[in-house]
Amino acid sequence: MLVSNEHEAFVAACTSAIAPPDSQVAAQVQAALNDKTKPRGSLGLLEVLACQLAAARGRMPEPPKKAIVVMGADHGVAEAGVSAYPAAVTTQMLLNFARGGAAINVLARQVGAQVVVVDMGTLTPPEGAPQILSRRLGAGTANMTKGPAMTLQQAVSGIRTGVHIATELAEQGITLIGVGEMGIANSTSASAITSALLDLPPELTVGRGTGVDDEGLARKRAAVSEALAVNRSHTNEPLRVLCALGGFELAGLVGVMLGAAARRVPVIVDGFIASAAALVAVRLAPPLAGYLVAGHQSVEPGHAHVLAALGLRPLLQLEMRLGEGTGAALAMGLADAAVRVLHEMATFAQAQVDDSGK
Amino acid sequence: MLVSNEHEAFVAACTSAIAPPDSQVAAQVQAALNDKTKPRGSLGLLEVLACQLAAARGRMPEPPKKAIVVMGADHGVAEAGVSAYPAAVTTQMLLNFARGGAAINVLARQVGAQVVVVDMGTLTPPEGAPQILSRRLGAGTANMTKGPAMTLQQAVSGIRTGVHIATELAEQGITLIGVGEMGIANSTSASAITSALLDLPPELTVGRGTGVDDEGLARKRAAVSEALAVNRSHTNEPLRVLCALGGFELAGLVGVMLGAAARRVPVIVDGFIASAAALVAVRLAPPLAGYLVAGHQSVEPGHAHVLAALGLRPLLQLEMRLGEGTGAALAMGLADAAVRVLHEMATFAQAQVDDSGK
Repeated sequence: MLVSNEHEAFVAACTSAIAPPDSQVAAQVQAALNDKTKPRGSLGLLEVLACQLAAARGRMPEPPKKAIVVMGADHGVAEAGVSAYPAAVTTQMLLNFARGGAAINVLARQVGAQVVVVDMGTLTPPEGAPQILSRRLGAGTANMTKGPAMTLQQAVSGIRTGVHIATELAEQGITLIGVGEMGIANSTSASAITSALLDLPPELTVGRGTGVDDEGLARKRAAVSEALAVNRSHTNEPLRVLCALGGFELAGLVGVMLGAAARRVPVIVDGFIASAAALVAVRLAPPLAGYLVAGHQSVEPGHAHVLAALGLRPLLQLEMRLGEGTGAALAMGLADAAVRVLHEMATFAQAQVDDSGK
Repeated sequence: MLVSNEHEAFVAACTSAIAPPDSQVAAQVQAALNDKTKPRGSLGLLEVLACQLAAARGRMPEPPKKAIVVMGADHGVAEAGVSAYPAAVTTQMLLNFARGGAAINVLARQVGAQVVVVDMGTLTPPEGAPQILSRRLGAGTANMTKGPAMTLQQAVSGIRTGVHIATELAEQGITLIGVGEMGIANSTSASAITSALLDLPPELTVGRGTGVDDEGLARKRAAVSEALAVNRSHTNEPLRVLCALGGFELAGLVGVMLGAAARRVPVIVDGFIASAAALVAVRLAPPLAGYLVAGHQSVEPGHAHVLAALGLRPLLQLEMRLGEGTGAALAMGLADAAVRVLHEMATFAQAQVDDSGK
């Protein structure tokens, strides 16, 4: 599996389309926050977030218009018994997302975020839900313990799909994108990607996912070890790692992040699996890092390693392990708060409050 | 300073008015959450919060109707140079709260919480803002480094005021109360209370508050040491500690928490200073503990000790150090999310999702 010139050129184009975040605007926002009636810096990470959103947008941030892109796909490695749920649940849950009954729907409604559901390649296509975008790369990936999970063509096609979706959302006026996923067995894929890109043993990257028992955990670790061994020659370069160990939904999310950053739209990354996609994306396009916000740190053990490698500090640590974009949705409430503080708080001068503490 | 029979009887009445949280309703809520389309427990602390709100309310929790009680007062110990801001800022900020320009107003608006501003005893009464409740116990406390900060009469009167305000809010239909505070030098008071009740040296309980420099920090530590030494005979009993080292706003908040719990209204505690008041309140009335939610863990070093003593796990850790109820307001968004999940998510049966993972 060679990375062709054409594909290299595409990834290079994605990278060069990403402008560095605007540090001058960030400084202006910090100065504005320093004038507000509170001790300097006393709103902590909310102030950091306001500055980051400004730097990404390249302007004083407006109240964000939000979308959460939830991509679903099935994973060949599910046949290794690595999940507590059968693969059919992926399609069932995409239908649940389409009908508004899942956790991500509830949490997205609370923050006024649109949910964009994308079938990147489930075993059985979801039927009767035209609002699900069908962008299928196949009927689930191949089993990564036997060889590469997908072809280079599939991976690049998935990235292109994600770029296209993010670009369309930006053109519709969306200014903040959250990324989430659904795919039975995809925490096994995320663990394998983390082990490959960060050179960590499965013991440090494999967790219980949706809640496997001790035997399931042992099967997950074994599956990751096998996948790493079988695909050994492909584990030193991000695009090859994505092909060897990834999922269709992860390829799509890589594209969403690249496409969002190219349009100066910051991205709130959800849990462990979305963060593994972020790690691939940042390795492909390092300037992306400045556009990423970590919404929530999962209890999955690999997540802390991925966040550290990305240099991201999570906004929330609520012991969640659901994915779907739920952590991103909750963090969007904090993004709203950060921007509101900037727009709505009085300055020391306006409120006639003594500013001698500065 | 003796704790009189009358005052003991009042505190005993406050305590006996608090029913134990209803563990049966909490179990019903957990069972309902287990039926929702997600792996069991995968929403982490949101699920814990939904159960706790249910146990406190004694029923399936409704979408909360919220109020944040922000109490302000001045502190005699400010004359020891323990704050980066002059004492006049307390009154100025109460006026800012009344006009809607402070951080707490912005964050409360976002979650639809009413802000109740109470003057518990500033140096100069705020003028021209009739919406501020005037419940003054005096023109600031006495300097605790010279003797008790307040009389027993003042402390109990402050508690009664808080109980009354919480009772009125409950009668108006409020089902979730946040507690916040404003008072130049009150982190010094909170540190002294923490040192006294948890038997910790000032080095572990004193931080930079609104942002004092190294010399200010040394003055704060010295002030706490002096206050503990001068009031040594009063540091073994919560009501005496409140009198010796507390502030009028802290006395009021103790009452708000006791009064809320007596009406089965859960309380989201804000940062370090509100938590010090919670520590006093729980020592007075141990059944209160089940009604308290820690909204945000401040960067103040004493806060972790207080939360550990209260057995509370903070929902947020955003490196904030502002008080006012800001951490409680942000956490109210999580309370909304927890209740929405319970009301709005589909069950496995409703969504026809395979529940074999349970």
